[in-house]
Amino acid sequence: MPRYRLIIEYDGTPFVGWQRQDNGPSVQAALEAALAALSGESPTLFGAGRTDAGVHALAQVAHFDLSKSWPCDTLRDGLNFHLKPAPVSVLGADAVGDDFDARFSATRRHYLYRIINRRAPLALERERAWRVTRPLDEGAMNDAARAVLGKHDFTTFRSVHCQAGSALRTLDVLAVTRTGDGLEIRAEARSFLHNQVRSLVGTLKLIGEGRWPVEAMAEALDARDRARCGALAPPHGLYLAGVDYGD
Amino acid sequence: MPRYRLIIEYDGTPFVGWQRQDNGPSVQAALEAALAALSGESPTLFGAGRTDAGVHALAQVAHFDLSKSWPCDTLRDGLNFHLKPAPVSVLGADAVGDDFDARFSATRRHYLYRIINRRAPLALERERAWRVTRPLDEGAMNDAARAVLGKHDFTTFRSVHCQAGSALRTLDVLAVTRTGDGLEIRAEARSFLHNQVRSLVGTLKLIGEGRWPVEAMAEALDARDRARCGALAPPHGLYLAGVDYGD
Repeated sequence: MPRYRLIIEYDGTPFVGWQRQDNGPSVQAALEAALAALSGESPTLFGAGRTDAGVHALAQVAHFDLSKSWPCDTLRDGLNFHLKPAPVSVLGADAVGDDFDARFSATRRHYLYRIINRRAPLALERERAWRVTRPLDEGAMNDAARAVLGKHDFTTFRSVHCQAGSALRTLDVLAVTRTGDGLEIRAEARSFLHNQVRSLVGTLKLIGEGRWPVEAMAEALDARDRARCGALAPPHGLYLAGVDYGD
Repeated sequence: MPRYRLIIEYDGTPFVGWQRQDNGPSVQAALEAALAALSGESPTLFGAGRTDAGVHALAQVAHFDLSKSWPCDTLRDGLNFHLKPAPVSVLGADAVGDDFDARFSATRRHYLYRIINRRAPLALERERAWRVTRPLDEGAMNDAARAVLGKHDFTTFRSVHCQAGSALRTLDVLAVTRTGDGLEIRAEARSFLHNQVRSLVGTLKLIGEGRWPVEAMAEALDARDRARCGALAPPHGLYLAGVDYGD
């Protein structure tokens, strides 16, 4: 059976998350419905990352199988036609080998977390960034971020509901840049634990505000205790920005 | 009477425009209602630019008078409290002299027009940018833009409903920059005619697509004929980005 890979952008606001669930609309279900309307088949879509409710994607990746072959441009345009008016857009479609798995073949995941650091509410970026009103020291945040790079037990920085067998992960990038009142935090790793990026960002924010010292980051990591994590950053600042594969 | 200046960000999507009108909610009316709720007074708000329905602002400027004095931070925060849930945010408030007029004292207005040049629909920027599917040549657009810089009769590039007495305007900046599939067009002048920026962008887009030659821009200008203008660019890509004053 031909296998296809999609690159997908979505606004997470109206969804219960990527994954199909009984309690509301999901991105996966919206795409599967469009795929069924287009093709007459009902394949399951497998995504690279299971984003939570409210979390966005600039370039989620997913794969699925169809019994017959389709031109990739027809798949992309046809899916976009049937997705309307859901805020989900297929940026690209291509044919891949049957050994390709969007989740398990991924070699690196890129997340972006956007903060707007100002007092006034957000009119234009309301569901697109986290407004933090206290001034943030991005230098302190970067100093703290460096302390958790590399391979560690990230028990402190994962959800109590995380189903991964091990909390060991290798964090390759965690970096804060500021442009005016906008902060971007980039996080990259082969894979992440559930809520890992939002947990790290929530803790960095407390350090940026000066409410916690820079050293609190390493101490929280070493404690391997979920209670030592800063309050979780909200979902609407988080974007799955891209997924790399060996190819 | 003390006079105050506000700097205002808004999402133009749910509004009939800046100006108070009978046919729906306006940004001006939302701000005036918040001002009345906060102060118990009912001043009229005067804006620097009358943005159309769907047009956004990063930094609109407006002034109003109150009979008693207010701390500026209280004005800003109180207005933001009473504006909820409208997507309008007061970024700053300051006291100004009674010779300050948001509209008539302005020495330069800055507009930004955002295009996303790709085939796939916009999921995250749906009401924030114009999607143009044909590839745009930003070099050709810049060549064309240079032809209309300076002082000209912009009859071709203004709405038939424009109420200005003269179509003479001096366009100081019209420049296109590209980052990936995003194009930003910046336009600056002391003042603009009604629909001038959207008229210029609509024409630049046809030139960028290669459907009109670069010379069409100067020819359209010289014709002083509204019928020679390219189709108006949609409002949701346009942002009033800032207003300069002599101070």
